[in-house]
Amino acid sequence: MDPKQFEELKENLWDFMKTEIYPNELRHIKEVKDIRSNGPSHWKQPQIMFELREKAKARGLWNLFLPVDSAQLAGRKGGGLTNLQYADCCEIMGTANHAEFAAEACNCASPDTGNMEVLARFGTEEQKKQWLEPLLDAKIRSCYAMTEPAVASSDATNIRTMITRDGDHWVINGRKHWITGAGNIDCKIMILMGRTGPKDAATYRSQSQILVPMDTPGITLVRPMETFGDDDCPKGHMEILFEDVRVPLANMIWGEGRGFEIAQLRLGPGRIHHCMRMIGQAERALSHMCRRASSRQAFGQKLSEMGSVVQQIAECRAEIDQARLLVREAADRMDRLGNTDHYTRKLLSLVKAVVPSMTQRVVDRAMQIHGGVGGSQDSFLPAAFVGCRNLRWADGPDEVHWRTAGRLELSFQRKQSPLYQIELYDHDKSTPFRAKL
Amino acid sequence: MDPKQFEELKENLWDFMKTEIYPNELRHIKEVKDIRSNGPSHWKQPQIMFELREKAKARGLWNLFLPVDSAQLAGRKGGGLTNLQYADCCEIMGTANHAEFAAEACNCASPDTGNMEVLARFGTEEQKKQWLEPLLDAKIRSCYAMTEPAVASSDATNIRTMITRDGDHWVINGRKHWITGAGNIDCKIMILMGRTGPKDAATYRSQSQILVPMDTPGITLVRPMETFGDDDCPKGHMEILFEDVRVPLANMIWGEGRGFEIAQLRLGPGRIHHCMRMIGQAERALSHMCRRASSRQAFGQKLSEMGSVVQQIAECRAEIDQARLLVREAADRMDRLGNTDHYTRKLLSLVKAVVPSMTQRVVDRAMQIHGGVGGSQDSFLPAAFVGCRNLRWADGPDEVHWRTAGRLELSFQRKQSPLYQIELYDHDKSTPFRAKL
Amino acid sequence: MDPKQFEELKENLWDFMKTEIYPNELRHIKEVKDIRSNGPSHWKQPQIMFELREKAKARGLWNLFLPVDSAQLAGRKGGGLTNLQYADCCEIMGTANHAEFAAEACNCASPDTGNMEVLARFGTEEQKKQWLEPLLDAKIRSCYAMTEPAVASSDATNIRTMITRDGDHWVINGRKHWITGAGNIDCKIMILMGRTGPKDAATYRSQSQILVPMDTPGITLVRPMETFGDDDCPKGHMEILFEDVRVPLANMIWGEGRGFEIAQLRLGPGRIHHCMRMIGQAERALSHMCRRASSRQAFGQKLSEMGSVVQQIAECRAEIDQARLLVREAADRMDRLGNTDHYTRKLLSLVKAVVPSMTQRVVDRAMQIHGGVGGSQDSFLPAAFVGCRNLRWADGPDEVHWRTAGRLELSFQRKQSPLYQIELYDHDKSTPFRAKL
Amino acid sequence: MDPKQFEELKENLWDFMKTEIYPNELRHIKEVKDIRSNGPSHWKQPQIMFELREKAKARGLWNLFLPVDSAQLAGRKGGGLTNLQYADCCEIMGTANHAEFAAEACNCASPDTGNMEVLARFGTEEQKKQWLEPLLDAKIRSCYAMTEPAVASSDATNIRTMITRDGDHWVINGRKHWITGAGNIDCKIMILMGRTGPKDAATYRSQSQILVPMDTPGITLVRPMETFGDDDCPKGHMEILFEDVRVPLANMIWGEGRGFEIAQLRLGPGRIHHCMRMIGQAERALSHMCRRASSRQAFGQKLSEMGSVVQQIAECRAEIDQARLLVREAADRMDRLGNTDHYTRKLLSLVKAVVPSMTQRVVDRAMQIHGGVGGSQDSFLPAAFVGCRNLRWADGPDEVHWRTAGRLELSFQRKQSPLYQIELYDHDKSTPFRAKL
Repeated sequence: MDPKQFEELKENLWDFMKTEIYPNELRHIKEVKDIRSNGPSHWKQPQIMFELREKAKARGLWNLFLPVDSAQLAGRKGGGLTNLQYADCCEIMGTANHAEFAAEACNCASPDTGNMEVLARFGTEEQKKQWLEPLLDAKIRSCYAMTEPAVASSDATNIRTMITRDGDHWVINGRKHWITGAGNIDCKIMILMGRTGPKDAATYRSQSQILVPMDTPGITLVRPMETFGDDDCPKGHMEILFEDVRVPLANMIWGEGRGFEIAQLRLGPGRIHHCMRMIGQAERALSHMCRRASSRQAFGQKLSEMGSVVQQIAECRAEIDQARLLVREAADRMDRLGNTDHYTRKLLSLVKAVVPSMTQRVVDRAMQIHGGVGGSQDSFLPAAFVGCRNLRWADGPDEVHWRTAGRLELSFQRKQSPLYQIELYDHDKSTPFRAKL
Repeated sequence: MDPKQFEELKENLWDFMKTEIYPNELRHIKEVKDIRSNGPSHWKQPQIMFELREKAKARGLWNLFLPVDSAQLAGRKGGGLTNLQYADCCEIMGTANHAEFAAEACNCASPDTGNMEVLARFGTEEQKKQWLEPLLDAKIRSCYAMTEPAVASSDATNIRTMITRDGDHWVINGRKHWITGAGNIDCKIMILMGRTGPKDAATYRSQSQILVPMDTPGITLVRPMETFGDDDCPKGHMEILFEDVRVPLANMIWGEGRGFEIAQLRLGPGRIHHCMRMIGQAERALSHMCRRASSRQAFGQKLSEMGSVVQQIAECRAEIDQARLLVREAADRMDRLGNTDHYTRKLLSLVKAVVPSMTQRVVDRAMQIHGGVGGSQDSFLPAAFVGCRNLRWADGPDEVHWRTAGRLELSFQRKQSPLYQIELYDHDKSTPFRAKL
Repeated sequence: MDPKQFEELKENLWDFMKTEIYPNELRHIKEVKDIRSNGPSHWKQPQIMFELREKAKARGLWNLFLPVDSAQLAGRKGGGLTNLQYADCCEIMGTANHAEFAAEACNCASPDTGNMEVLARFGTEEQKKQWLEPLLDAKIRSCYAMTEPAVASSDATNIRTMITRDGDHWVINGRKHWITGAGNIDCKIMILMGRTGPKDAATYRSQSQILVPMDTPGITLVRPMETFGDDDCPKGHMEILFEDVRVPLANMIWGEGRGFEIAQLRLGPGRIHHCMRMIGQAERALSHMCRRASSRQAFGQKLSEMGSVVQQIAECRAEIDQARLLVREAADRMDRLGNTDHYTRKLLSLVKAVVPSMTQRVVDRAMQIHGGVGGSQDSFLPAAFVGCRNLRWADGPDEVHWRTAGRLELSFQRKQSPLYQIELYDHDKSTPFRAKL
Repeated sequence: MDPKQFEELKENLWDFMKTEIYPNELRHIKEVKDIRSNGPSHWKQPQIMFELREKAKARGLWNLFLPVDSAQLAGRKGGGLTNLQYADCCEIMGTANHAEFAAEACNCASPDTGNMEVLARFGTEEQKKQWLEPLLDAKIRSCYAMTEPAVASSDATNIRTMITRDGDHWVINGRKHWITGAGNIDCKIMILMGRTGPKDAATYRSQSQILVPMDTPGITLVRPMETFGDDDCPKGHMEILFEDVRVPLANMIWGEGRGFEIAQLRLGPGRIHHCMRMIGQAERALSHMCRRASSRQAFGQKLSEMGSVVQQIAECRAEIDQARLLVREAADRMDRLGNTDHYTRKLLSLVKAVVPSMTQRVVDRAMQIHGGVGGSQDSFLPAAFVGCRNLRWADGPDEVHWRTAGRLELSFQRKQSPLYQIELYDHDKSTPFRAKL
């Protein structure tokens, strides 16, 4: 999108946040509370969300996430934004009290965005018609089933759920957990990653991704996984049992054995989106911190006049701005060089390792300035805290990303760094301190 | 208690933990869940607690917190333990899944312990008979009302709830929050801190503590404050409104204007107890971390074979051991020198600033090793996290304690340090680098 | 400079580093050692520097620092680079073993660059002819005398050196220290900041900057201040005594009372230069770290295969990249909006607080990977360490910059942040948990 | 030593510090400077040291390090102190401007203390007479040659210097560096660790320790290794070349192949000594920090009135006290249980990993409060910084100790922790969230 149009879009989005999102946060919380107390069969988006969606659509704030090329593949007008531009939008949407509240209203929430992009790129016409169309219209929701309880799933070769062929069906058996979105009764379709290759193969060709309608017999939603006691109703992070779940052969995406490739392709944008929403959360935490500091008095001084508080505020600003610049650099490189570029891949690992931790520190400091209120139902901070704390293990724990980035760095240094080859000093030792006898 | 007896007591307590507490943690969680879902009128200790109390009593693990002198004042056999000995017991009790689950079973939970000690030391015979006796028998529960929503209550001079005299009654008006324990329907008595001195006085004689039966007209339990969504049922951290609450003049404790002194006296032991239970929580987190690391595999290695995990485990051990030694030093000094000793006061501030943060770091690392499970209902870690996170602001935020300790240190240095007076170097400058023209 | 030309310039500069700078580092160290051992009267640039300057000039790598406008004022062809472009050059030059070794060879070292810019902008034609011309040709060196031993000079209102008028001269009395560059016998001119206003005024109009030829009677070079034992020969960070030092009235720069304004104007670019050279130092430290890790074996593994080492390498990369992006953002904003822009000012404080600390951490980790060698004369790391450690207090300690940035942030939040005004939750409390009796 | 006597000893030692050590620090610095400038043949203790030794002897502050049993073996009256008591003395001695200045005056400096203890325990009568006697009287100095430039020597199996038998001599060939003390012309004897076992053996029986008189032909003192530019004159951390160095068979200590055992036995006490001296350095840094903060003003406030400074002071106190308690715990356990106890071994690793880092942080903060002066020749802080920074890699880098401690912890947890076996929650999943179709 050209810069001028884009500035208008951002103005539009900010205005949406100020007039529709922030004022409705409390209503959203209350409606979700009611839904939860009504039990599993009522888990769906609250009424406010359906109203907000109409407003977002009317403003043209809809499916912004959809890159130009995917939009074409989808036969739709998407955002037409670069990754860098959409990153800015994610930050703005991420300033809502819940990181994905505004994103959801704009049909830009995970895991639907990733699923839609996968369908747009790799789906057959039939698959697109059946699942992508209603997703783009937010008529249904979707989920993505990858993580398993028994193994460290950040190492994708560990995945054990079996997809075996039986005549003209694929048959799925296994157990997944942390399947976000599956709790919603409007969630109609799942993309599942499972093993189609030989049982003991550790190669990157043994995994496949497949479409599984949620009403297929054999699927049990065991329970929602909770994070710090939160079940994330109405999406839920579900534990799911698959017992002889049969789907037609045509449900395979992009071909058998391409699961790992598909997973890789959705990673980059997904991380940018999550990270930029986290930046939004951190910005909001900092704002609340400043406001509290400016209004609270102790020991004869406003908190905002205390040196240690002022320094903390500046440190938060420094950390947020540095992190934002890093994510934007990654997004910009993806736009310019694609996500297979060596440095871009390193950045995509680094941002995932850097941003949620940074947000956690900012939110933790903001909480501390608030005293007890900072952890209570009177503050958005606990939800923000849980959000970034979870992100430190979701999509691979930080440590996996540090590892990836460190190995890429070592490889870069060995091959390309002009500094790596500088000789270490070789001091002349011909004149000894004291000669031998 | 003599060392040999004390070793037996600790054995006894460890055995109680292993045979009665750990195996009943899940039952405790479930019963509390049921109580919560039944609504406010059902908030009381779950059935398992009443059973465990009988077992603790039968083992002589009852009222261990009560120091010898307070026990005498209370006309009871208490623990007869030194602060240092009881500190060890707190650590052991603190290894339960919830920091005060075992403490509660042994009638050693806050705020009852502090209230009982205040009553034993400062209560009239009548007050003791009416409130201390049933508390020592766990027939009733109590709460302590200090913190207020409108002001930074860690600066006690800020407290605004008014206690005004009207004939032969004191009349209380104001609003408190974070009043732990007040949600329990067995909570029958409150010790309230409020202002009896002139409205604009900032002295330490303007506050008083007074006994307020929970069924006194004019008390509204507004709502439980939540911490990360947890209402701490059945205790609750209640917001309470006081509207013309009238109690007899005889309910004043130790005399008008002594509220600040009473508050100071309960602080020292309370901090030791909380901190040592946190050490127990940290020890448990470390154990779970080691167990997870020993059983989980990624990238072809057990986590416990990865250098960074091994180092984290060692760092946790170093932090826990150092923190424990600091708290034990504080407890030992209280035993030997009382809590008015300059260094002891400094230590009592330092432990409060050091231990909850340390525990948070340990728990956070343990979570990270667990991946998603570490924050879920399948782990004790989220409860541990919330517990230590809260303690960083409860009883005065960390920053207040750093401030107190730093000022005590500066004062010590100026007056007593042999190093403070060492002259800074006074280099001879008689031979200039280059002389003037 | 247009982008294509600039890419060529960078290539040229990289080539200069590889062919002229890195191979001559050891020679430089040795020549400086010899100069030092010959005593104060021999302190001047070593022979290698004069050779390198000719090569730099021949390549057009000369006075790159001089912005287009200053160049015009100076009647010279300068670098013609934007701040952002020159920032990149600073990073490249900063990869030398000593942060300013290459900069010095290109006539781009402090404090000469700042002094030249001040003269170009505020000097009279006479002042330019006498001092700026030879500085631009590196025929002389200069120093900048601001910091004083008796007061916290980061608060410029504290400065006490007096500049008093006596007939047609200004007379200077006072003591300065940390006057970098004054030790060099080729240092011919000093810009001195001192008080011309009333003795007790704390306003920003009481300070002036004045030109003081180094051979003016009354100047004593007392001693070089050392940093970790290093006297920084041949520049020296000199302690200087001023006793009735008389200079003509015409030596005043830009007029009496404008000292503070001049100081402000040189700050922005100076910080960018220092910070980017530090980034260069950090990059080199990381390269050496990777090289050592790839060549050293312990406990049966290469260090570069150990998880904790790989993670540290990635963390260094993340910290360096974030810091660089922050400095480049500051430089870019200076180019686009000037350094009086609110956010730019904040960034100029933040980079100074962020970058030297970051570099210190990176260098410290690199040292640790090297074992004892990392702190020895066989490594560039100790010099790098001392350089960044010093920068944490030079030009105002970190704390002063955090303070400035924090206050700017608070002011921004109060006036402009769309998030600051979001209402805190106001939960409906009409239905109490338990009603009053 | 009984507690009362010990209190007197400490009084005596404190008095020695105040009357003899602190007032002579500057003289010591100057005399060392003179010695250095006179060249290698003049490297010996400065005159002040010989005077201080006489005073220390006269006060009975001599050879305090020598444990009762070693003293008996040495046929001397040593300190007769427990490890815990001597630890306290090390802290006091460690408050000198240089960590070992006072220790040297009391004949308690490394590596002589370790060498004397080895000779007392494992030396033959002849070896004791020739080398131990004059060492105990400080008539000669000694060194300990273990570390080698080519390999990671913290893994002792890597050591390559060969000790081969040739008739009635052992012949030594190899290269060592960082051999502390070897630069002193009074250093007459070296204990060298080298390989006597088969070239490719990686067992712990292939290393031996042997006595090598410093005037044996074939020894070249190549150069002193510098740390941050400091050659540690007159001790020096020498690089030494061994070319066919022949010593009699009788010079072997405790028998061939016992080198590793001897090395282990000297480790425990050595670490306690170093760490406690570091605590002393940290205490002094904190005192200077408080003094500076109390005397310096900026922005209208004393530094000691600024919240962030006060907090830093408190944090330093908390870190120092915790670290001291950890080292004292290790010393006390060594006294009670020996250094083969599992927990004691863990502690001996932890203190080495914890204390130097802690001291570095404290010194770094103290520097920052001082501004430029904190890194200059006017402050003891740079020497303190270099001392603790070096200790982070000397005697094995921190990382090696974290590794050792982490592995011991994992082993403890698996075998002995009562918490390790607590079952993870096994939630009843019989009632699914939503049943399968």
